[in-house]
Amino acid sequence: MFRLTVHSTEGAARAGSFTTPHGEVATPAFMPVGTQGTVKGLIMEEVAELGARMVLANTYHLYLRPGHDLVHRLGGLHAFMRWDGPILTDSGGYQVFSLAHIREVHDDGVVFQSHIDGSRHEFTPESVMEIQRALGADVVMAFDECPPGGCDRATAEAANARTLAWLRRCRDRFEELEHEVNVPLQTLFPVLQGNVFEDLRRGHAQSFMDLGDWSGYGIGGLSVGEDKQAMWRVLELLDGVLPAERPRYLMGVGYPDDLLEAVARGCDLFDCVAPTRNARHGTVWTSEEGQVNLKAARFREDTRPIDPGCDCYTCTHYDRAYIRHLVVSAEGLSMRLLSIHNLRFLVRLGEEARRRIGDGTFAAWSRDWLERYRNERSLV
Amino acid sequence: MFRLTVHSTEGAARAGSFTTPHGEVATPAFMPVGTQGTVKGLIMEEVAELGARMVLANTYHLYLRPGHDLVHRLGGLHAFMRWDGPILTDSGGYQVFSLAHIREVHDDGVVFQSHIDGSRHEFTPESVMEIQRALGADVVMAFDECPPGGCDRATAEAANARTLAWLRRCRDRFEELEHEVNVPLQTLFPVLQGNVFEDLRRGHAQSFMDLGDWSGYGIGGLSVGEDKQAMWRVLELLDGVLPAERPRYLMGVGYPDDLLEAVARGCDLFDCVAPTRNARHGTVWTSEEGQVNLKAARFREDTRPIDPGCDCYTCTHYDRAYIRHLVVSAEGLSMRLLSIHNLRFLVRLGEEARRRIGDGTFAAWSRDWLERYRNERSLV
Repeated sequence: MFRLTVHSTEGAARAGSFTTPHGEVATPAFMPVGTQGTVKGLIMEEVAELGARMVLANTYHLYLRPGHDLVHRLGGLHAFMRWDGPILTDSGGYQVFSLAHIREVHDDGVVFQSHIDGSRHEFTPESVMEIQRALGADVVMAFDECPPGGCDRATAEAANARTLAWLRRCRDRFEELEHEVNVPLQTLFPVLQGNVFEDLRRGHAQSFMDLGDWSGYGIGGLSVGEDKQAMWRVLELLDGVLPAERPRYLMGVGYPDDLLEAVARGCDLFDCVAPTRNARHGTVWTSEEGQVNLKAARFREDTRPIDPGCDCYTCTHYDRAYIRHLVVSAEGLSMRLLSIHNLRFLVRLGEEARRRIGDGTFAAWSRDWLERYRNERSLV
Repeated sequence: MFRLTVHSTEGAARAGSFTTPHGEVATPAFMPVGTQGTVKGLIMEEVAELGARMVLANTYHLYLRPGHDLVHRLGGLHAFMRWDGPILTDSGGYQVFSLAHIREVHDDGVVFQSHIDGSRHEFTPESVMEIQRALGADVVMAFDECPPGGCDRATAEAANARTLAWLRRCRDRFEELEHEVNVPLQTLFPVLQGNVFEDLRRGHAQSFMDLGDWSGYGIGGLSVGEDKQAMWRVLELLDGVLPAERPRYLMGVGYPDDLLEAVARGCDLFDCVAPTRNARHGTVWTSEEGQVNLKAARFREDTRPIDPGCDCYTCTHYDRAYIRHLVVSAEGLSMRLLSIHNLRFLVRLGEEARRRIGDGTFAAWSRDWLERYRNERSLV
């Protein structure tokens, strides 16, 4: 259980299967984000239909509302959100550092105020394990400190040390809870930090591996404002350090071009709110025209699907003209239809990458794909 | 075509079939409202699944955005909104009088400002026929003047006279357009006005019937703030005046209890935005507990469906605890799930009324149903 079987590789890119108590996940795989226990606007049957096998939910949000204890009493997150497939919960660390108000960071944990009602809360490595145990996801993430993008070396180093110390406490509490709270089998992924400092990244990864044999690794602290080239360098060096047969989850990364670049550098799992957030603003990805916003007047009488090559429900049932009308009229249905398309776009990109790695054409296909996608974006 | 076949009656209540170019509508029938060419949040397959056979769209909204000419060029409203069943468009009169800004009412028509951008527009009986011809609905409504609820007799009388004069012009333009603009067969329903003044109601209906043999009648100017008993009296008197074999569409009426009261008084077709508007606020109808708001704390751990007796997608897949979480968290999915339930609730009420009229138990069933529903409401 929780093993990645690598079926084929091409360079650093890998195609594999990740086994969980709720089924196998073919990798590379994009995981739709169900922040509050719902992939915004969609029923979970639709999420399954668009090919997603594993979804993410946010510990911070579910802890605040409706509360992890309530979710546990109601049968756990799978039952609560009607999803039989694997679920990953994040640690809440990222939200505490980015979304919550006024906070104190101690060695013991983080004190924060709810973004909903200003109430005071504390997350510690132990409490975050307890919350995620109660939620009952398949994969739970260690509590980490994610310093802001562009931080200096000393800040990154201190955050690394704290994240490592917290990881030990997470592991200890996680192991205790396996005997205390009865939920289906879970596993714990640590979160690698170190910003763009290559030696810190290398040292952090090594110290995690010295601590134990983890069933997978979260790669955090990227896509937080740093230069893209720096992100690729970090992924390349981690590819040389991390064990091959463990899934690597690149946290919060999921624009189409970034996903392909990261797959090329050995990443397996991805999540990002961009598909649903972009949907809210009328923005979609297409394979022939790059990223476009459907509010543009040129779509007014456009009777083509959003992406003629796409097999999603939206593209096989609706045209741009109608969807543009929904977007311009701020109709809720547009959010749903565009989310389905954008999510399917990323899920399909993972599927296609997997197929290409299998037959050894990933590098060539990915290069052409990225070139076209970027040219198109620059034309918009 | 456009004939109502009455299969059975019980008192004034009738069960029938209304034939349209896009299929038959079993009556009594609630018609979901697709204001802007979309039943808020739903795909039309879901609307069909919940048993709705005929839907309504708003001329005022579609005229302003995306424009009737555009809808026409895109193949008409059926193609535009992906609905193969019958569609009824209203005349826009009600929206002009209730939603648009600064207006002048002349004998020729109404000048108004768009609620979207303040732009100046004019609706005349002729232009409203042209717009509805371009949209291409099965049933189009005559342009009427709907004076505010509680207006005095002179105001109601003047509005009646204008509505009658406009009806003649609507009919003439409607007949011309049948040769000018090629769309599937349409029919024109006049809109009966007269507020709560019984002699005006009677006179208005008689003058319409003197003008021709209409294939159906819209009953307007009710549910605009008047006393409920006055509304029932108007329906009773119209039942004695209007031809039996013509469908009667009670405009804008559709709360569950009002629907049953109106069925008992010979009405066949209904529409109302309450199912979707209530959904937006977390309010649902149940057969055992009346109208409830799911935000209430007592639903926090309630694992029952919204309505245990309901066969809708929401009630067969989700529980109150999860949906309450969605409502409290302002998640878009709640609007969708609650709309499905509320719409199904009204559609089912029509189906059940039809069955009961067929076997002669409508009056007894309806009395019990209303008593329970009203008692429950008073307990909330």
